[in-house]
Amino acid sequence: MSLENQTQKERLCAVIRQLHAQGKSPATSTNYSFLDEDQVIFVSRSGVDKSQFQPEDFIAVDTTGLPLPPNEGIKPSAETLIHCFIYQNFPGITCVLHTHSVAATLLSGIFAAKQAVTFSGYEVIKGIASQTTHETAIALPIFANDQDMKSFCQQLAQRQEELNNYGFLIAKHGLYAWGETLAIAKRHLEVWEFMLECELEQLKITPPLAAR
Amino acid sequence: MSLENQTQKERLCAVIRQLHAQGKSPATSTNYSFLDEDQVIFVSRSGVDKSQFQPEDFIAVDTTGLPLPPNEGIKPSAETLIHCFIYQNFPGITCVLHTHSVAATLLSGIFAAKQAVTFSGYEVIKGIASQTTHETAIALPIFANDQDMKSFCQQLAQRQEELNNYGFLIAKHGLYAWGETLAIAKRHLEVWEFMLECELEQLKITPPLAAR
Amino acid sequence: MSLENQTQKERLCAVIRQLHAQGKSPATSTNYSFLDEDQVIFVSRSGVDKSQFQPEDFIAVDTTGLPLPPNEGIKPSAETLIHCFIYQNFPGITCVLHTHSVAATLLSGIFAAKQAVTFSGYEVIKGIASQTTHETAIALPIFANDQDMKSFCQQLAQRQEELNNYGFLIAKHGLYAWGETLAIAKRHLEVWEFMLECELEQLKITPPLAAR
Amino acid sequence: MSLENQTQKERLCAVIRQLHAQGKSPATSTNYSFLDEDQVIFVSRSGVDKSQFQPEDFIAVDTTGLPLPPNEGIKPSAETLIHCFIYQNFPGITCVLHTHSVAATLLSGIFAAKQAVTFSGYEVIKGIASQTTHETAIALPIFANDQDMKSFCQQLAQRQEELNNYGFLIAKHGLYAWGETLAIAKRHLEVWEFMLECELEQLKITPPLAAR
Repeated sequence: MSLENQTQKERLCAVIRQLHAQGKSPATSTNYSFLDEDQVIFVSRSGVDKSQFQPEDFIAVDTTGLPLPPNEGIKPSAETLIHCFIYQNFPGITCVLHTHSVAATLLSGIFAAKQAVTFSGYEVIKGIASQTTHETAIALPIFANDQDMKSFCQQLAQRQEELNNYGFLIAKHGLYAWGETLAIAKRHLEVWEFMLECELEQLKITPPLAAR
Repeated sequence: MSLENQTQKERLCAVIRQLHAQGKSPATSTNYSFLDEDQVIFVSRSGVDKSQFQPEDFIAVDTTGLPLPPNEGIKPSAETLIHCFIYQNFPGITCVLHTHSVAATLLSGIFAAKQAVTFSGYEVIKGIASQTTHETAIALPIFANDQDMKSFCQQLAQRQEELNNYGFLIAKHGLYAWGETLAIAKRHLEVWEFMLECELEQLKITPPLAAR
Repeated sequence: MSLENQTQKERLCAVIRQLHAQGKSPATSTNYSFLDEDQVIFVSRSGVDKSQFQPEDFIAVDTTGLPLPPNEGIKPSAETLIHCFIYQNFPGITCVLHTHSVAATLLSGIFAAKQAVTFSGYEVIKGIASQTTHETAIALPIFANDQDMKSFCQQLAQRQEELNNYGFLIAKHGLYAWGETLAIAKRHLEVWEFMLECELEQLKITPPLAAR
Repeated sequence: MSLENQTQKERLCAVIRQLHAQGKSPATSTNYSFLDEDQVIFVSRSGVDKSQFQPEDFIAVDTTGLPLPPNEGIKPSAETLIHCFIYQNFPGITCVLHTHSVAATLLSGIFAAKQAVTFSGYEVIKGIASQTTHETAIALPIFANDQDMKSFCQQLAQRQEELNNYGFLIAKHGLYAWGETLAIAKRHLEVWEFMLECELEQLKITPPLAAR
């Protein structure tokens, strides 16, 4: 284990525990990874309470999701394949974060039939690396939840042109966000989660008042 | 006191303080327990501020709820009998958690007449040990609140077949969740609390928008 | 300064900082006190950021609100007179807490004309010292906000029979809660704040759904 | 670097991290500054995760926003010009805080056409230095978001008489608040954010219930 990877594990642990404290990582269910210089993916072990996540709770897998020594015996989370898909298809990405917030879970269900939530005019849109102005509308694509990861990744591949904004939702499941570094991935995640919270609040305002 | 029990007390204390910080354990009112290898139940003393709960705030009772030495003089919480019921009727369970969140209090009242809240299609459903897919609907049974614990436990016994998902609500009161270990009980609690929060948010969305 | 008073100051400081962290004490605006064995009231200085409140931020006043040595030069908060009123009229009370939560501010305005918010059937009602069952309805009286503290205390005196449940609201202002000890005062505050949060959530549920 | 400036940087860092923990500073997007006795502005570097903001993340600029040695090479945030405008036009102000809360983002959008959110009868209004009673209505002006900072500052100049209450909103963007000291600026910010939260909750209450 290189010193750099150990530092990266500790930084990602701090982010994971922060996300649990914000209520975005309940019930051991989310997952997180980073890619090192040797194309090794370090992904969070499933089944760990994210409020107590530790550096030793990452396991090393190759870019196809197969556990590397000394983790050959450990079955990684099925969703590891989604992380692999992102690293394979978006060169330069080194960190993938997957949260389960109330807002993401709810809005991904409500707008599932539209296959996207669209955000318009928010200043924080500029926090997405591909965006330079708030005077735009930006779509966060929604995919149907699927137990079969191969089939899910095919869906991602078919709609890959929608994935240029570093994020997508899975219906009634949660958010994936990524970036060139851990800091950028976290920034992207915070942009999406913030706008999802805003849109959820907007939906709760009764129509006559919303129209003020 | 075995070293193992002391460790378990400290772990459960950390969970209790976390639940208070999340607003799910107001006003000294919730209770928590674990069962050790000798069939001794360690249950939280009533009347303690859960933000300051300490290992010495557990008292030892037998499987019928009677205080064991050196706690004979201390009257345990009346709800200790609910903990006893769960340990007696669900072999293998070693931890019971009981919270009072806003979402649990409210939804258990709103759906009291239906005797259950039903959750459908959520990914986090898979966090319940008995479930393997999100493509299902899962019911959290609701029981009427009752000052008489014997009578309340009879209600639990009559509807025991509804208790296979490791949780139930008491109307306008709160949530019980349990598991084979403290970690599993906490995971179950977080699944239920998260889905209750989602359903409460859903109820606040005005109908035309909810139907989008 | 007795050792006991120093300990009490530190305990109350911890509660004050917790309440700020919960969003219930914004903008230096709330106040807190305890009464010692010599009938000296220690009340929070006004103008202090409650997230950084320290033991030296209490000033000593007599039971009429006049600053005691060495604090003669410091003008205590105008609302000190409300604390004095409670200590004078409810023998045995040694702690008064006054918060500004969103729920208390909002509901005290919405129900101002009814002069009370009524809570019915909540388990946590039993956390109020005067209550023994959840099968009851309990009123939290609301008083109009008033810049003139003498006139405000006359209102309290005229409706003193409504103050037996250790709490009241001031419209669009906040909550007062008290108890025989700091722990009991905090428990009472948490009961009222929790039920206020529940009622606020209930108001946000649209009528057809609320009637389910 | 004077000892006093180092202390001020540490204090402002603590405030910034607290605001991130409250969800009011997502995605590296907000900015913060103070003015020292030599008319040097220390402004937060852009692109830093506010949950990890450190004293060395401030850069020194002059009152026109030009970086001072040793920061000549660093491009400050475009919004630095807004901080400069406030210091130039409001003598005595030494601290400016800019947050992105959900409530500020949403209400600044909903009321954008009215160019202000008005708050009436709240006790916390007295936390604004220019106000002495709750028996008043107070307006928080809203400005359209603008990518061109020069043009934005002209808008501020044209409506300068609306800025006497130490705060304004930018539509779908966030809140600016300021004060004679860091403590006062923070108090002003907490007053505005608290009242914005209250008004957002009010909008979510369905009309028949709101009229109770």
